[in-house]
Amino acid sequence: MTVTADVTETLRTLRAQVSALHAELTRYELVVWTAGNVSARVPGHDLMVIKPSGVSYDDLTPENMVLCDLDGEVKEGDLAPSSDTAAQAYVYRHLPHVGGVVHTHSTYATAWASRAEPIPCVLTMMADEFGGEIPVGPFALIGDDSIGRGIVETLRGSRSPAVLMQNHGVFTIGKDARAAVKAAVMCEDVARTVHVARQLGEPVPIPEQQVTSLFDRYQNVYGQ
Amino acid sequence: MTVTADVTETLRTLRAQVSALHAELTRYELVVWTAGNVSARVPGHDLMVIKPSGVSYDDLTPENMVLCDLDGEVKEGDLAPSSDTAAQAYVYRHLPHVGGVVHTHSTYATAWASRAEPIPCVLTMMADEFGGEIPVGPFALIGDDSIGRGIVETLRGSRSPAVLMQNHGVFTIGKDARAAVKAAVMCEDVARTVHVARQLGEPVPIPEQQVTSLFDRYQNVYGQ
Amino acid sequence: MTVTADVTETLRTLRAQVSALHAELTRYELVVWTAGNVSARVPGHDLMVIKPSGVSYDDLTPENMVLCDLDGEVKEGDLAPSSDTAAQAYVYRHLPHVGGVVHTHSTYATAWASRAEPIPCVLTMMADEFGGEIPVGPFALIGDDSIGRGIVETLRGSRSPAVLMQNHGVFTIGKDARAAVKAAVMCEDVARTVHVARQLGEPVPIPEQQVTSLFDRYQNVYGQ
Amino acid sequence: MTVTADVTETLRTLRAQVSALHAELTRYELVVWTAGNVSARVPGHDLMVIKPSGVSYDDLTPENMVLCDLDGEVKEGDLAPSSDTAAQAYVYRHLPHVGGVVHTHSTYATAWASRAEPIPCVLTMMADEFGGEIPVGPFALIGDDSIGRGIVETLRGSRSPAVLMQNHGVFTIGKDARAAVKAAVMCEDVARTVHVARQLGEPVPIPEQQVTSLFDRYQNVYGQ
Repeated sequence: MTVTADVTETLRTLRAQVSALHAELTRYELVVWTAGNVSARVPGHDLMVIKPSGVSYDDLTPENMVLCDLDGEVKEGDLAPSSDTAAQAYVYRHLPHVGGVVHTHSTYATAWASRAEPIPCVLTMMADEFGGEIPVGPFALIGDDSIGRGIVETLRGSRSPAVLMQNHGVFTIGKDARAAVKAAVMCEDVARTVHVARQLGEPVPIPEQQVTSLFDRYQNVYGQ
Repeated sequence: MTVTADVTETLRTLRAQVSALHAELTRYELVVWTAGNVSARVPGHDLMVIKPSGVSYDDLTPENMVLCDLDGEVKEGDLAPSSDTAAQAYVYRHLPHVGGVVHTHSTYATAWASRAEPIPCVLTMMADEFGGEIPVGPFALIGDDSIGRGIVETLRGSRSPAVLMQNHGVFTIGKDARAAVKAAVMCEDVARTVHVARQLGEPVPIPEQQVTSLFDRYQNVYGQ
Repeated sequence: MTVTADVTETLRTLRAQVSALHAELTRYELVVWTAGNVSARVPGHDLMVIKPSGVSYDDLTPENMVLCDLDGEVKEGDLAPSSDTAAQAYVYRHLPHVGGVVHTHSTYATAWASRAEPIPCVLTMMADEFGGEIPVGPFALIGDDSIGRGIVETLRGSRSPAVLMQNHGVFTIGKDARAAVKAAVMCEDVARTVHVARQLGEPVPIPEQQVTSLFDRYQNVYGQ
Repeated sequence: MTVTADVTETLRTLRAQVSALHAELTRYELVVWTAGNVSARVPGHDLMVIKPSGVSYDDLTPENMVLCDLDGEVKEGDLAPSSDTAAQAYVYRHLPHVGGVVHTHSTYATAWASRAEPIPCVLTMMADEFGGEIPVGPFALIGDDSIGRGIVETLRGSRSPAVLMQNHGVFTIGKDARAAVKAAVMCEDVARTVHVARQLGEPVPIPEQQVTSLFDRYQNVYGQ
């Protein structure tokens, strides 16, 4: 592929960002060995930057990130892309507002996923970030569009940027890769807290109207 | 605002302390991403120093801490202050002995909070630091004085420097910011230990008289 | 022993690899103090490289790794080899495709082992790496071939590279030491996730045919 | 006190060891803030070296360790010694084979302690290090010899180097400070593993004869 001049600088930045963001997955212990990845859409192009498959987090560099088109075909890079590339490409093709996707098998979220049980919204922090429960997507085998379709169909019916894929793990989305990583970090945090809460009884529900009120404020007011 | 000369050095010290104390929140894994904060009263002035909103812990510096008055209005700083500023300002206005406030969503304490269940005092370390159970405050939405009022009313009826706000998280107070951070660290530690204890049975209660005896000794004798 | 010239370079490499791989055991908190070890077969020779007994992970170097024959007799090294040497030598003698062995008492896997309960395959990541449940081997005392024989007999009837030895801990195998370490890391990860899942209900089973499909793809397609 | 010349070098070494060993308590997360300590007997003298009270682990140095006699009186040092000094001095006075004592409130061990429930010996690693169950000592208030007496009376009837003091935490002993730290690390590790095992069923018991066999081998053969 010949990359036009105007995208060269964008690509350099995205490669550095995607590579560096994997350090948040290890910092928060969302991944072991090589089992999780971050990708970013190249804005204005049918392209994405993603982790190479089976490479240790310690060995990631901007240069070994893989550039693919949105059919998952490699456009730049010597390494095979993540085995989740097809699923993430599907998400970018069908959800145009999504600029970043993250996949992990983080412990507590994956435990809920293995029971096919959504995480109920019983924390103000969950209302803020997820706007309600974190939903469960279908069981789907790798190898065709089943996982991507499951992610997209589940997230379209939800305010949540995270979906628990049954028996599998978590996919999160965001306006950019950093936002998707944040959603992955928050997803595991609330999955763990609600799990711990449920071990000794039932959390108090938060009325739907107050969930919405918290979600609206957080999405519009929080941060700089 | 024109800060008078005599407060300049105090402010420099407090900015450095408040910034640095956030490292204890990450060290003990009481917070993820940007979801927790420390503040300190400026002694002798109706002012407080607090974390900026939505800024990563790695990026905190003495310079980007925000100086607010006790109505939560920014007096110095280019960044918006923590979204918990109003609640913490309320605490400083109504509890004059408080010099520091900390807010976290630490996992085990927040799990108790989501069940609206106080943590029973079944550890000598809890008697030492908290003087009894750690109480639960009301469910309260962000945006007015509800959270601050809930904190103050709950803590006024307790020896505990920590309150579990229902469905939300923990607020702790102390004579200074370091003492409030210590209370936040100890609160999560005892929340976890008592949770674990309860998973396999009932902890042995400690008689009230001995709780008081431990509390009095620890507050007066422990340390240098 | 006189080591022939052609094996000198191989040994240097293996000593460095085996020493360094112990850092993965501590990174993922699979071991405490000195309670776990890695070994590697010397390809083409009846020799193995293994951790010295009772030495802290901080103090491991390529030079203090111990070279033993496959009866567990020391061939090079001033220190006594791991007390698990006999068990691991037995594995190398009876499973010629094995190039690396790891032993840990990692928390969650050992908890399953103490109940003599195999870990059911309810995660796609488990199907990928283990091809089904992680089986339990017999209770066996240290001091003769009981442990080695228990490992070999259990793994011969399974696709899993990990075995939970009853009341004891985990042994994993791989084509080389790095693969065995990966299996140990993944074993603890799935042991923890399935434990957490089971605490609040029953995970959804994955049909056997789909377990096999996932296993075949992962063993043949994943990575570079 | 005038310290005789021959003990000067011993003291220098012990101060460095005791100070450094606290890093193992934080490494294995057995302690938070300042809530745990290590001491060592000065061999051949009625003296002990112990952590100062309420000082952060980051701030410990060989120089600020406190030298006390075995009545707990300070002999060298500008800081007050640990509030556990009296209990540890009692142990040194009554158990002449003990060269090191450690105290922590590590989470899982303290959870068993709060239920006054001994940890059953269902792991080979427990048989190795503890020779049977880890026993529970009485509830005792700080301030007189109650804690020390409870530790000594409980450990005299046991092969275990660790005792769970009811509602309080763990005390461990060893031939030197390093051995006592090892026992504290192992105690928390087995407390956690047996807790996790018990959450989903009953661990398989290990027959008493085999516990003894494992204990005898480990105490006499393991390590260098």
